[in-house]
Amino acid sequence: MIKHNCGIFGVYNSYRALDLTYYGLFQLQHRGEEGFGVVGVTDTGIFERKSEGLLSELTKNGYAFSFPSSRAAIGHVRYSTTGSPSTANLQPFIVQFRNDFLAIAHNGNFVNYKRLKEKLVKKGTVFHSTTDTEIFLHLVAQSMESDLLAGIMYAMSIVEGAYSILLLTKDAIYAVRDPYGFRPLEMGELEGAIIFSSETCALSFLGANHIRPVKPGEIIRVSRSGVDSFKLENKNPARFCIFELIYFARPDSIVDGFNVYEFRKKSGMMLGKLAPATADIVVAVPDSGSIAAIAYAQTVGIPFEIGLVRSYYVGRSFIKPRLHERESDVVFKYGPVNSVIKGKRIVLVDDSLVRGTTSRRLIEIIRTAGAKEIHMRVASPPLKYPCFYGIDIPTRHELIASSLDLNEIKGFINVDSLSYLPLEYLINSDENRFCTACFSGEYPIEVREK
Amino acid sequence: MIKHNCGIFGVYNSYRALDLTYYGLFQLQHRGEEGFGVVGVTDTGIFERKSEGLLSELTKNGYAFSFPSSRAAIGHVRYSTTGSPSTANLQPFIVQFRNDFLAIAHNGNFVNYKRLKEKLVKKGTVFHSTTDTEIFLHLVAQSMESDLLAGIMYAMSIVEGAYSILLLTKDAIYAVRDPYGFRPLEMGELEGAIIFSSETCALSFLGANHIRPVKPGEIIRVSRSGVDSFKLENKNPARFCIFELIYFARPDSIVDGFNVYEFRKKSGMMLGKLAPATADIVVAVPDSGSIAAIAYAQTVGIPFEIGLVRSYYVGRSFIKPRLHERESDVVFKYGPVNSVIKGKRIVLVDDSLVRGTTSRRLIEIIRTAGAKEIHMRVASPPLKYPCFYGIDIPTRHELIASSLDLNEIKGFINVDSLSYLPLEYLINSDENRFCTACFSGEYPIEVREK
Amino acid sequence: MIKHNCGIFGVYNSYRALDLTYYGLFQLQHRGEEGFGVVGVTDTGIFERKSEGLLSELTKNGYAFSFPSSRAAIGHVRYSTTGSPSTANLQPFIVQFRNDFLAIAHNGNFVNYKRLKEKLVKKGTVFHSTTDTEIFLHLVAQSMESDLLAGIMYAMSIVEGAYSILLLTKDAIYAVRDPYGFRPLEMGELEGAIIFSSETCALSFLGANHIRPVKPGEIIRVSRSGVDSFKLENKNPARFCIFELIYFARPDSIVDGFNVYEFRKKSGMMLGKLAPATADIVVAVPDSGSIAAIAYAQTVGIPFEIGLVRSYYVGRSFIKPRLHERESDVVFKYGPVNSVIKGKRIVLVDDSLVRGTTSRRLIEIIRTAGAKEIHMRVASPPLKYPCFYGIDIPTRHELIASSLDLNEIKGFINVDSLSYLPLEYLINSDENRFCTACFSGEYPIEVREK
Amino acid sequence: MIKHNCGIFGVYNSYRALDLTYYGLFQLQHRGEEGFGVVGVTDTGIFERKSEGLLSELTKNGYAFSFPSSRAAIGHVRYSTTGSPSTANLQPFIVQFRNDFLAIAHNGNFVNYKRLKEKLVKKGTVFHSTTDTEIFLHLVAQSMESDLLAGIMYAMSIVEGAYSILLLTKDAIYAVRDPYGFRPLEMGELEGAIIFSSETCALSFLGANHIRPVKPGEIIRVSRSGVDSFKLENKNPARFCIFELIYFARPDSIVDGFNVYEFRKKSGMMLGKLAPATADIVVAVPDSGSIAAIAYAQTVGIPFEIGLVRSYYVGRSFIKPRLHERESDVVFKYGPVNSVIKGKRIVLVDDSLVRGTTSRRLIEIIRTAGAKEIHMRVASPPLKYPCFYGIDIPTRHELIASSLDLNEIKGFINVDSLSYLPLEYLINSDENRFCTACFSGEYPIEVREK
Repeated sequence: MIKHNCGIFGVYNSYRALDLTYYGLFQLQHRGEEGFGVVGVTDTGIFERKSEGLLSELTKNGYAFSFPSSRAAIGHVRYSTTGSPSTANLQPFIVQFRNDFLAIAHNGNFVNYKRLKEKLVKKGTVFHSTTDTEIFLHLVAQSMESDLLAGIMYAMSIVEGAYSILLLTKDAIYAVRDPYGFRPLEMGELEGAIIFSSETCALSFLGANHIRPVKPGEIIRVSRSGVDSFKLENKNPARFCIFELIYFARPDSIVDGFNVYEFRKKSGMMLGKLAPATADIVVAVPDSGSIAAIAYAQTVGIPFEIGLVRSYYVGRSFIKPRLHERESDVVFKYGPVNSVIKGKRIVLVDDSLVRGTTSRRLIEIIRTAGAKEIHMRVASPPLKYPCFYGIDIPTRHELIASSLDLNEIKGFINVDSLSYLPLEYLINSDENRFCTACFSGEYPIEVREK
Repeated sequence: MIKHNCGIFGVYNSYRALDLTYYGLFQLQHRGEEGFGVVGVTDTGIFERKSEGLLSELTKNGYAFSFPSSRAAIGHVRYSTTGSPSTANLQPFIVQFRNDFLAIAHNGNFVNYKRLKEKLVKKGTVFHSTTDTEIFLHLVAQSMESDLLAGIMYAMSIVEGAYSILLLTKDAIYAVRDPYGFRPLEMGELEGAIIFSSETCALSFLGANHIRPVKPGEIIRVSRSGVDSFKLENKNPARFCIFELIYFARPDSIVDGFNVYEFRKKSGMMLGKLAPATADIVVAVPDSGSIAAIAYAQTVGIPFEIGLVRSYYVGRSFIKPRLHERESDVVFKYGPVNSVIKGKRIVLVDDSLVRGTTSRRLIEIIRTAGAKEIHMRVASPPLKYPCFYGIDIPTRHELIASSLDLNEIKGFINVDSLSYLPLEYLINSDENRFCTACFSGEYPIEVREK
Repeated sequence: MIKHNCGIFGVYNSYRALDLTYYGLFQLQHRGEEGFGVVGVTDTGIFERKSEGLLSELTKNGYAFSFPSSRAAIGHVRYSTTGSPSTANLQPFIVQFRNDFLAIAHNGNFVNYKRLKEKLVKKGTVFHSTTDTEIFLHLVAQSMESDLLAGIMYAMSIVEGAYSILLLTKDAIYAVRDPYGFRPLEMGELEGAIIFSSETCALSFLGANHIRPVKPGEIIRVSRSGVDSFKLENKNPARFCIFELIYFARPDSIVDGFNVYEFRKKSGMMLGKLAPATADIVVAVPDSGSIAAIAYAQTVGIPFEIGLVRSYYVGRSFIKPRLHERESDVVFKYGPVNSVIKGKRIVLVDDSLVRGTTSRRLIEIIRTAGAKEIHMRVASPPLKYPCFYGIDIPTRHELIASSLDLNEIKGFINVDSLSYLPLEYLINSDENRFCTACFSGEYPIEVREK
Repeated sequence: MIKHNCGIFGVYNSYRALDLTYYGLFQLQHRGEEGFGVVGVTDTGIFERKSEGLLSELTKNGYAFSFPSSRAAIGHVRYSTTGSPSTANLQPFIVQFRNDFLAIAHNGNFVNYKRLKEKLVKKGTVFHSTTDTEIFLHLVAQSMESDLLAGIMYAMSIVEGAYSILLLTKDAIYAVRDPYGFRPLEMGELEGAIIFSSETCALSFLGANHIRPVKPGEIIRVSRSGVDSFKLENKNPARFCIFELIYFARPDSIVDGFNVYEFRKKSGMMLGKLAPATADIVVAVPDSGSIAAIAYAQTVGIPFEIGLVRSYYVGRSFIKPRLHERESDVVFKYGPVNSVIKGKRIVLVDDSLVRGTTSRRLIEIIRTAGAKEIHMRVASPPLKYPCFYGIDIPTRHELIASSLDLNEIKGFINVDSLSYLPLEYLINSDENRFCTACFSGEYPIEVREK
């Protein structure tokens, strides 16, 4: 599976800032299951809590737990992209900055990380972690600018890549989005408090009003003097990550102006128009393919059925002692409904096809359950290029569409027919709005370090 | 929510008996999320591992873990019905029996528990737990019968109620089902090993062949001398729990001869025929209402849409500091897809209606998201009576249908129309096969202790 | 090292019964370091807390902890004598007894355990543990006596061996001591509360008055109707374990009428009179040999010096990766003070000599530190026989004095001279008061099971 | 109690470097009980293990544990002086330094911490902790010197205060001691490996030869090219902390050329000559006063007796629910031997007197046990001034000798007579060798930040 790349959340001006951040992160948990952290400003100082695993870990031991009152807070859920998901790597990071503290939560990836680090090291900069996030802090600190805002602008002028960042100080929250706007970051309001969240699903959960996205290249500062917006000069067009819409974001979210549910539904309809199939039922790979599958079924007029039952108990790290081949992860996760599948011609719909190995195994399960024919329909184009802007897409040679053509893939995963949704139909009229590098190879920012 | 009442699993004659039991329990996790246990016979003695929480807990600490080789094993996943879910109450229980050990895993409930315990206590029996399961062990031990089989039969002749039981000794597994057959217990085969499981989904997962259910009143002994079946004389007809089909069992399971998926689909179709609605879309309460909703939608010819997104990260014990009313558990679990709901006339389908409070809150969420009309359709009859055979259905006065009539319920949950599926359409021609006490009040076994 | 065999503590009639039990056990920790448990009667039921390890474990996680109010409580610290020190084996055990509960804490060992268990099993008794303590409970329960006291007396008439037992019910505490009185059990009083403790050091710590020992064969019941004493008819003379005085009990305790400090001091003086040595300094093996060493030094007129520093950080279970021979446990525990030892003729005093391996290694350390001569003085007789009454003394062939004579031992541990304190001088005029089986082989109770 | 201020240990050139460091730290545990850490260079990178609590924590969970092979390693045991003893504050710290890593373990305290930090912050330095140790790393990194050695020298020229430091790189260990030599650091050799340790007791334990102390102002580098010594120009005389000899160091250690045992013995003898008493017995406050007490007893010719038994089970963080006044920490730790104390005139000897509250409570216990007279003798001068060089001595107003005169102290702790050992007799002819600021108020380094 493709891994997400973190979610961030922040609240300014509510005595429940820590509570709301904790609740908000619950709705962003799908963006990061490996660990979480919250940092809040309380009357007596900084409150910090981090843990590996899911947010529900917080209450595992059965002890009563409550957050202190706090007027501002930020939080982070993370997937580790490198190294072990140790507590030391969990965000938000807190550093001593000037005579105060500075906390940072970061979603994204700097592409000129290595060169920047080299330069800083030559200047005598001591690094405490191997994360790229730390670079940003050092640039801000060394900018010698009189205030934090200027320091942030200086850092933004030097780092390249994808980043949505929340910074927390004693007095303010700064919400920052890179000039291309690769990663989402939304702003909302609840009873006088300003809230930032990677996705709107966390805003609606809290009953907060959605105001607007933080714009590409924008810095929003929320402090006692109100909400101020600053903008980096920016000649490049925005490039929102299309994979957020295809797979990452929750279907009840709106991100960067796009309605995730409608995007997926339209993809499924388009796929139905372009690649119908003669079959008895349409089955989704749950849950990622469900919306597209239902839309596909409605478009082609074939009944949608739940042919695969997904288990939500299989976490990322469960043990597999003496596991036989037929008991792979895929089998743990998906149970075929034999009576639905047996003797049927099936259209199987998924949102994307990455390595092909999961699909292959899943299709084998469906065949064993008695399917007569299997027609695979993928609601996005062939995935051919790695991502350097914050998504953990495998290297080129692991991407099946990068080395095999359509016919070979069809053979590899062993289906009776296979269709993808072409890029032009996916992006439609919004062609200049998206980063589609993983499909097209056209990278908005040149990547010299890989 | 109605709570399940445990799942049991056992393997005889495989060196991977413990591994397979662990894998099997993963597929039965929906029957018990509060704790689990496995016990296996190894070359050097008994291996035992129990823990509160989900099976995935086993690997939380990051240490490598592997089960020893074992020729036979049984396991249990549980919901606590009384008291705290402490490790001491986790099954399988292991006792010293004669010169050997005896382990027991139990799904169900004895209805004459109190009287039996009183009698045993008078005889000087020492009880180590407050569970009814222990009664069975004492009856077996005190039967004075020359062998375990006779002891089990003696115990079965005395206890009344619902039980599916697996017993493990050094040499054999005994699978036992009460004469009414309230709870499921299925037998399968994999490469010479005999497997018992509450549901077949765990058998198909392992690639095992499904042989047949353990019959009501039957004892199956698997030992070196093969598979032997013994039967208690039994004049009563079998009474399989209809709620297993409505809600408990996984849709990819077959239990006691019934196909769960087909049962739910048929219920949804019947509901569509009996209670159509004039509406724009059909929305399910995920996941329990999904199958019925899709079938309903197909029957009435209204499009099925995913109007509610369910979060799977919200466990039973997450903390809720300073939670405002609008941030209840329901809100944590279900996110409305605004663009789907807004301005629409909606048919909302669920499998059952228990207290009415969850539905009420959920309907409020849907109304806030902009629904024009909401028509509730419930794929089972009004739930009016508590269960004494192993399901944690609330007491009468908590069941909304027990105190309010249809019109009052409609008002309470605030829908534009409300229909249930009548009992005669649910059970169809199988009317004598089921225990329907929770709907009809007709209890197969008289219950004097409550 | 010889292991202790548990400590017990109980309080009746104080709202701080659980707190006081916890504090009392802290002073009995030397009698059992592998685990502990407390059970108390509260207004709402039974409170129970058990844990492996030291009492200080209770507060390890940093969470605030407090015991509920409780009117009566008992507690236990334990050394495991068999099996792993798992939580399941920690005492007090709680069982369902009649319509109430019964908790038991036991210090000692039944010698006719196997035969009794066999008989009970034949009657259909189910055992939940492999401990001998459980036997006592079944005998009480099966006695069919109308009240608990009679049941206890019945059980005492059947079990043979060493036992000091505390039983807790909703209404009373029963303190029981076997007819020989092998293990200590003392009674005290504090502000109207009655307290039982293995040793008086826990009484003085609480500021409680020491009343008297529970007598051999006595049952003391403390209930609302006061303190009642019952006595089993008993023709045998009492036989208090002399090893409690030599090594087990804390020097600030009085047990069964004996002052531990004075006993050890007298042993050291006697040893000085019988076995003086020409030497420069007297050094103790700390802490077990310290009192005898100081008395020896005063008697012979040679200065006492601290030649060995003991580390208290070395617990029972510390890891020893790639440990070289010279880095054995002994070395971890004792650091030689080179400037004290170098060039000196040393008298080394210890309380007893068990396997000889520790002494051998310790003497090697002292020689390496530059001692010119080493004269070993042991403040008890040669240890030749195993104990069946609750002390974990190794089997005969592991006891060095059982296979080697004085001269051979002297050679094995490599000292310039070696003297023991003969039995007659140790017990003095109290010869019929003690069990001296480990020295003399005269077992007060015949032992058929070994 | 006065708290220690960390211990450090390092090994170069042994495949068992991590194991030996772990063993060595065990012998330095008295210098820091709140947490520990080890870092080693292995073939595949850096190995790191840190934990709160004692070293024995490492094996608490029962899992087998072993360190990897490593050619060099350093370790640290700590007392927290500020903030909570969280894992984040445990040393050794590891940072990214140039293209490699750098680990640091530090014992001591920088007195110009605040000014230095302010300067660095102005330059844009980001601090990750609130410890003074981090200052040293930034100074080294920002020195712009071509090699690490020059960077260390630069840092030493800027920081002021007390420090013994071990630095570990991929290729070398650097052992550094401040120009005054406040804190100890000893060098040893074992089978070709070079070892550094705060005290020699850890060297003798391993069977290592003691070579010499690292000298004040010296940097010793151990690398493939051997052992090289560098020296900062240093006009100031060395000032070794006298409290290391009075209380901190283990009596079987030699530190900075001083034999700890002999120092304490001489103090006790001198105290006997200067302040004899008419009494029946001499009793030590164990263990800190034991050596002085025995020497005192020998000098004045009064018998030494063990009148107080110390419990080693009472850790720093045990809970005290509903603790009555008479059950204070002191009582938990010391049990009076009534038969020794009753009716006696007692000389009570301790190493030092800090707040007076512990002594007061202890003397109350001894009085309650029946002492007729108590004569307190303290083997060091009145403690009047706080320490800024790494020892956690309370502020002035908490030090009893700072606000009360001898007579008032005598009244406060309620003794019949009280004598201290005057400073000139304590330091003897070595008067220019020691830092005695806590007694004399003469601080070797001016302290402007407090």
